[in-house]
Amino acid sequence: MPDKVRIALDAMGGDHGPAVVVAGAELALRHNPATEFLFFGDAAQVSPLIDARPELQAVSKFTHTEVAVRMDAKPSQALRYGRWKSSMWLAIAAVKKGDADVAISGGNTGALMAMAKFELKMLPGIDRPAIAAVWPTLRGQSIVLDLGASIGADAEHLVNLAMMGAATARILLGIERPTVGLLNIGVEEVKGLEPVREAGRMLREEKLPNLDYVGFVEGDDIGLGKVDVVVTEGFAGNIALKAAEGTARQMGEYVRDAMSRTLGARIGYLFARSAFRKLKERIDPRRSNGGVFLGLNGIVIKSHGGTDAEGFAAAIGVGHGVVRDELLAKISFTLGRHHDYRRHALGGAAS
Amino acid sequence: MPDKVRIALDAMGGDHGPAVVVAGAELALRHNPATEFLFFGDAAQVSPLIDARPELQAVSKFTHTEVAVRMDAKPSQALRYGRWKSSMWLAIAAVKKGDADVAISGGNTGALMAMAKFELKMLPGIDRPAIAAVWPTLRGQSIVLDLGASIGADAEHLVNLAMMGAATARILLGIERPTVGLLNIGVEEVKGLEPVREAGRMLREEKLPNLDYVGFVEGDDIGLGKVDVVVTEGFAGNIALKAAEGTARQMGEYVRDAMSRTLGARIGYLFARSAFRKLKERIDPRRSNGGVFLGLNGIVIKSHGGTDAEGFAAAIGVGHGVVRDELLAKISFTLGRHHDYRRHALGGAAS
Repeated sequence: MPDKVRIALDAMGGDHGPAVVVAGAELALRHNPATEFLFFGDAAQVSPLIDARPELQAVSKFTHTEVAVRMDAKPSQALRYGRWKSSMWLAIAAVKKGDADVAISGGNTGALMAMAKFELKMLPGIDRPAIAAVWPTLRGQSIVLDLGASIGADAEHLVNLAMMGAATARILLGIERPTVGLLNIGVEEVKGLEPVREAGRMLREEKLPNLDYVGFVEGDDIGLGKVDVVVTEGFAGNIALKAAEGTARQMGEYVRDAMSRTLGARIGYLFARSAFRKLKERIDPRRSNGGVFLGLNGIVIKSHGGTDAEGFAAAIGVGHGVVRDELLAKISFTLGRHHDYRRHALGGAAS
Repeated sequence: MPDKVRIALDAMGGDHGPAVVVAGAELALRHNPATEFLFFGDAAQVSPLIDARPELQAVSKFTHTEVAVRMDAKPSQALRYGRWKSSMWLAIAAVKKGDADVAISGGNTGALMAMAKFELKMLPGIDRPAIAAVWPTLRGQSIVLDLGASIGADAEHLVNLAMMGAATARILLGIERPTVGLLNIGVEEVKGLEPVREAGRMLREEKLPNLDYVGFVEGDDIGLGKVDVVVTEGFAGNIALKAAEGTARQMGEYVRDAMSRTLGARIGYLFARSAFRKLKERIDPRRSNGGVFLGLNGIVIKSHGGTDAEGFAAAIGVGHGVVRDELLAKISFTLGRHHDYRRHALGGAAS
C-alpha cells in the first residue's frame, strides 16, 4: 500500500468543470489527508482555483492542456481530437505511466470508457469493461454492475461480472464472501433468458470460493439489499439505476410537498427538522456518486457530470477506497485463479 | 358503450385467493355501481364470501371449478392441467365468448399470458403481447410498456408498442395526442442499440397522427413524467418497474425511520400526521395496481399477486376505464390504420 494515494483528476470534466473538481478535491483532502492530486486542464481556468487553496496546492501537481473532451462528443470523435492531449486522456495516461493510482472524471462517459480501454487495455480473460457502483439499500450497501459500460452479455461475461463485483464488494464493503444474485425478471415464461440462466448454472456448479451465488433477484430486491452483489448486463443495469434515482427524487419531492401543505405539517416540520435533515442526507444521491470502471488494467472512476463539490468528493472517496485496498490486484488475482480453475476443470476448453 | 361493465374474475388467483378478490370486488362496486361480476372458483371457498355481501351478490354470477392455476406453475404446465377448466381459463373464456368485457386475475403472470394468447389470439399485425401500466409521476401519470410480457423487441414491435401505448394513454389518461419516448441509456457509445434506434427513425419518419414521438428517454425520466408514454422491451421494462417499486418502499422506510428516531421527530409527526397520511396514500403501490395485457383480441388485466382488497379494487378500476372507453376497439382501429398506411407508403413491403 502506498503512503499517499495519488489521484489524477480531469479538471475539465463534468457540467461545471474546474469549479466543482477543484472544490471537490479540497473537500476530499480534508477527509483523507494522505492524498496527492494530479490536475489536468486549462491553466487559465484551473490554476487560480488551486492557488486560492493553499492546503490543496501543497499536495497538487498541475499539467496544462487546452484540449477538453466535449460532453456531447461521440467516443470516436473524442478519441480523434482528444487522444494524447485532452485533460481526460492525460488523467488516464497518468495511471498507465504509474504516476497516479486512479483517474477520476465527471466528463463524457462514452469517451472516458473508450479512452480508458484504448490506453489501459483489458485484463486478461476480460473482453468488455463494466461500471460498478455502491447502491444504498435498506440493509446497508450493495455493489451493482454493469451500469452501462456495454449492452448485452453472454454467460461468460456475466460470470466475469460476478467475480469482479464480488472482489469490489470485498474491498469497498468489507464482506469476505459476498452473496451474489443475477438480475432477472419474474415472469415464469421468460425466466429462461438464456445467458442469465446459463450464467446461473455456471455459478452454481463452479462454486467459486470468493462468492456465494444465491440465484436470481428481481429489480425490487436491489433496494431491499437482498444480496451484496447484483449482476446484470449494462442496458438493464443502467435503466434500473436511473429508474431508482428518478423514484428517489420523486419521493423527495412528495415529502417536501407534503410538509409544506398545511399549517400542522409546517409546525411538524419545525419539530422534526433534524430528522428531515438526516433523511435528506440519507437519500442524497451525491453520497453514492462514483462509478468504478472494472476489467481494465488500471482504475478509472466516473463521477456524475451534474454533481457538485460534495458529490465529486464522494467519487474521490471511492477512489481512495479501491486504491487503499488494491482492488485491481485482487480482481486480477481472482480472475487468474478462476481461469486456471476453468482451464483445469474443463480440460483446456475455456481460456 | 355497454350499460354495465361485465368483469370476469379469477377468484382463485393471487397470494390470498378469494378473500382478496371478493372483498376487492365489493370495494370496486361501491366506486362503480354500474358493474356486473362473473366469479370463477371453488364454491366452498368463494360462495360464502359472496353470499355474505348482499349488494355484491345481487350483481354477481358464480361458476364453480375445482381447478386453480398454481402460482409457481410453468405456463406449459398450467395450460396442460388448467385449460378449459381452471378459474383463470374460465375468466378469459368469458371474454372470448362475449359474456364479459374484461378478465382480471392476480394469479401466475406467465400462465395468464399463455392462456390469454391461446384463447383470445393476437390482434392482426401484432406478434407478441405487452403489459402496460399507469406509472405515477411528478407531473401526473404516464403509461409504461412492456413491463415483462416478452423479452427483447425488434423495431417493428417497438413501434407497435408505441401505438398501443398511445391508444392506452388516450383512453386511461385522456390525452388526445400523447408524447411518446423510447427508453434508452445515456452512454453515447451504446446509444446505438439497433432496434431502439431503428424504431426511433421509423417513428420520426412516419409521423403517426395519434402520437407525438419526442425521442429517447432515460430511466429517471419516467418518474419525472417527461413523456406520456414510455416504450421499452419487456426485460428492461420489468426491471425499471421493480427497481422503482423497491426504491419507493425504501424511501417510505427511511421516512418512517426518521420520524420515530427523536422526540422532536415524534412530536413533529403528530402535528403533521394528516400530511403523512396523504403522503402514504400518494406513494401507495396499491393505487397503481393493474397491468393491462395489450395486443390480444380481448382485454385481460393482471393484478399484483400480493395485493390486498384495495389494490385488487384498483385493478378492477383499471378494467372499468379501459372497457368504458373501448380500448380494444381504439387499438384495433389505430393498428389497422397504421398497417394500411405502411402498406401504402412502402408499396406493400410491410404487412
